[in-house]
Amino acid sequence: MRSLGCWMPTKGIDLFFLKTRKNENIDMLQFLTLDLLPAKNGEEPTMQFLLEVVDILTNYVRKTFDRSTKVLDFHHPHQLLEGMEGFNLELSDQPESLEQILVDCRDTLKYGVRTGHPRFFNQLSTGLDIIGLAGEWLTSTANTNMFTYEIAPVFVLMEQLTLKKMREIIGWPDGEGDGIFSPGGAISNMYSVMTARYKFFPDVKTKGMTAAHRLVLFTSEHSHYSIKKASAALGFGTENLILLSTDERGRVIPADLEAKVIDAKGCVPMFVNATAGSTVYGAFDPIHEIADICEKYNMWLHVDGAWGGGLLMSRKHRHKLSGVERANSVTWNPHKMMGVPLQCSAILVRERGVLSGCNSMCAGYLFQPDKQYDVSYDTGDKAIQCGRHVDIFKFWLMWKAKGTIGFEHHIDKCLDLSHYLYTKIRDREGYQMVFEGEPQHTNVCFWYLPPGIRDMPDGQERRDRLHKVAPKIKALMMESGTTMVGYQPQGDKVNFFRMVISNPAATRSDIDFLTDEIERLGHDL
Amino acid sequence: MRSLGCWMPTKGIDLFFLKTRKNENIDMLQFLTLDLLPAKNGEEPTMQFLLEVVDILTNYVRKTFDRSTKVLDFHHPHQLLEGMEGFNLELSDQPESLEQILVDCRDTLKYGVRTGHPRFFNQLSTGLDIIGLAGEWLTSTANTNMFTYEIAPVFVLMEQLTLKKMREIIGWPDGEGDGIFSPGGAISNMYSVMTARYKFFPDVKTKGMTAAHRLVLFTSEHSHYSIKKASAALGFGTENLILLSTDERGRVIPADLEAKVIDAKGCVPMFVNATAGSTVYGAFDPIHEIADICEKYNMWLHVDGAWGGGLLMSRKHRHKLSGVERANSVTWNPHKMMGVPLQCSAILVRERGVLSGCNSMCAGYLFQPDKQYDVSYDTGDKAIQCGRHVDIFKFWLMWKAKGTIGFEHHIDKCLDLSHYLYTKIRDREGYQMVFEGEPQHTNVCFWYLPPGIRDMPDGQERRDRLHKVAPKIKALMMESGTTMVGYQPQGDKVNFFRMVISNPAATRSDIDFLTDEIERLGHDL
Repeated sequence: MRSLGCWMPTKGIDLFFLKTRKNENIDMLQFLTLDLLPAKNGEEPTMQFLLEVVDILTNYVRKTFDRSTKVLDFHHPHQLLEGMEGFNLELSDQPESLEQILVDCRDTLKYGVRTGHPRFFNQLSTGLDIIGLAGEWLTSTANTNMFTYEIAPVFVLMEQLTLKKMREIIGWPDGEGDGIFSPGGAISNMYSVMTARYKFFPDVKTKGMTAAHRLVLFTSEHSHYSIKKASAALGFGTENLILLSTDERGRVIPADLEAKVIDAKGCVPMFVNATAGSTVYGAFDPIHEIADICEKYNMWLHVDGAWGGGLLMSRKHRHKLSGVERANSVTWNPHKMMGVPLQCSAILVRERGVLSGCNSMCAGYLFQPDKQYDVSYDTGDKAIQCGRHVDIFKFWLMWKAKGTIGFEHHIDKCLDLSHYLYTKIRDREGYQMVFEGEPQHTNVCFWYLPPGIRDMPDGQERRDRLHKVAPKIKALMMESGTTMVGYQPQGDKVNFFRMVISNPAATRSDIDFLTDEIERLGHDL
Repeated sequence: MRSLGCWMPTKGIDLFFLKTRKNENIDMLQFLTLDLLPAKNGEEPTMQFLLEVVDILTNYVRKTFDRSTKVLDFHHPHQLLEGMEGFNLELSDQPESLEQILVDCRDTLKYGVRTGHPRFFNQLSTGLDIIGLAGEWLTSTANTNMFTYEIAPVFVLMEQLTLKKMREIIGWPDGEGDGIFSPGGAISNMYSVMTARYKFFPDVKTKGMTAAHRLVLFTSEHSHYSIKKASAALGFGTENLILLSTDERGRVIPADLEAKVIDAKGCVPMFVNATAGSTVYGAFDPIHEIADICEKYNMWLHVDGAWGGGLLMSRKHRHKLSGVERANSVTWNPHKMMGVPLQCSAILVRERGVLSGCNSMCAGYLFQPDKQYDVSYDTGDKAIQCGRHVDIFKFWLMWKAKGTIGFEHHIDKCLDLSHYLYTKIRDREGYQMVFEGEPQHTNVCFWYLPPGIRDMPDGQERRDRLHKVAPKIKALMMESGTTMVGYQPQGDKVNFFRMVISNPAATRSDIDFLTDEIERLGHDL
């Protein structure tokens, strides 16, 4: 057979020549995928194969929560590409045995990163919720699509009820409004900009951006880069996204917003994004003051609560989003602070009708008006997607299993842990906080200063050396596989660690482990 | 506790008052989610719970392939919302027992639709591939994110290798180019329009649509509605999407394209979408002739092969996409014709650099340039998403397990089956084909005419009655739960059935069952 690059019509090869084995008296692992369901007599090998896979997965789960397991077994790209023993990433024309498939599954997990490990702090999404995991397994098994009630009746209703609950928690009267689950916070934020544009300039849908004046958008210089991506993608242009100054702790200065709105001469100020929980500092913009300005100048207020939205579930911490009920739209990612498996992000819109008005195209082959059931439940047309993954079930199931108070407990615990870290290191020798005062979210941003740097005079040389410390410690951490935490520069601040806690498995001892590890690996740098 | 609408700061409730049970001598199903990992002693209940879930899922899988099982157990939205016995969709403040969670899982599957059933023909994505299912279970367990090599080393490499393989199969020299997996064909098509715009008018990224002349896009009147959604979302406007006429079988007439390009005075013709496998007719636009016109007028050629791309895997059928190697970009959804579980869609771009140029924003907190490994593997910045679900693993694993020839075999088999259906009904009494000649893809479009309509003279009354036949049969099918097939009107053609075959479990007997069922349910209409 010629290589795939030349995969062209030749005399067909009968696939079945490969399948000469009989089912009896042979190790099931010698089977091929062809022996599985829907094959005749495929039930037994199918069940056996799936149980073997489950055995691999449950072992992985068990070990993930065991602190003696490494977070990762780091290899460079070229090493994995060259092929580890028995693990070859290349695809071929011929099938592999199911035995090899099981080996491939084991190796895929072996060389990956255990994001559920109690000492994985690297991203805003961490942890492995068992109920959520079961929910995803079920979702995969149901393997359906959110576009219509017809083929996803239960999931469509779960989505509607859950979105309503989220709107109630935001504080919109009777949970009225609209919304949809989208493939991540960036797309949810993109929805907010699109929806705002449709509300003010509905003709853009048909006539394009030329139907509107030059529109400008506002967001914090600390906000997530997805607002910038949306302004590029949707045809606004990144230069028409005005960045707002922040205070020392990364919160938008409302007076700066108003000044820039006034300053936007010849343009139409249309949209303001307020961040509830910024990516690096975990800052919450002052929503009430921003809402006042939005009302005064007739602008759409979006709250990007991708990271901070979860705090709405906590009676102790929800005040940080005070004013969110005045937003026109809200992004809220249960896959971050609420520990729902990836992906689970919602865009919520206060006014009903505008989301579907913005996006609907009424495709006849999907959204037939003459079905036997109430087609107002065919909600897919308000998405920019056609097919849409079922992201709701795991979240719904977790909510059932934990109750609202379970989410509250989780969030309060994470914030307690970050308070513990903050109080531990704020005055500790060798640490310097990036900003003063108690963090608002679980983000704790700090420099670790190896002894050799501590006494250096402030200046370029010290900055240059400090800039290299976090990357070096991070590299050593990954190579030893003990823990993972993020770092980055921000504005004129050189590389610092950003510790975030959303992992339900983390305890104080894991926080202690992290600081010990930073000191151990960084001491001699 | 007050209702969630008033979920406001009050005196905290200790969650643990709910957990007074001991682990010993108690049915594990009386446990709460709090008893599972990471709880102390959580390993045993966790394993037991997951195995109970797997038992539910494997039973579901087993029954799905059993033809005596119903495809669905239909209920109206209000019935499910009112609550079936023991199945309450409402969320509450308090946790449920794990026993109830297992009941919820069973009921969710019970009231859903078995998209893997051998007689489910309702969508372009059907079937339940066991290897793909195992792949999704593993993906959920790994629960990571595609943005960086750092936290998804194996998956990032699998994506790169698989995309390269797909580009080789398209026919681009050495598989060069770029690409990314996206959350569905609609988003992949959106990428193509964005990328084309960036190639011709890179300033739009920063300055917005005002940096370009009035741009126009072209697509078939039979093309997927996502092209229209993209033109609205990206700021072109749907009026600047010019619809192309098709021949009787739904294929673009190249002369119509050229005439409309010439006719687009004062505008810049920028982008042409050629559909490879249209949604309803399964038509393949003549790519070579369209490519000639694109080259002549310097336009971007996109091939939407979301549905038909899979045929590239078949040496017998890939000629239908002849010329695809001349495209600038291609959408190809393995989750449709190749039977990969939802979601799995790729956008492939011939020229390297333009996709990342279009979308990258270089967020410092994710894409640090000073990592210890080759950061060219941090591919996330070319996405419009930030977090991105791992869609690659199930596809990679299926490819390993089947080999390229396994996909070829599946596709050839589906096309053989649709040929069987076509030859069976084209001259059969009571059937009328929507267009003449052998379908190009597995779409077989036809009217069923109940005896009472057959002899009616052509005219409005006959049309009106015929228009109601397919919805009525479909409603009866769903209520009896025996099979599912789609219908829709198209242009001036009244409602007709669109049979599509992508289900690996389907056999000739299932096709026979479908026509028998249509006749049984439709005979007296």
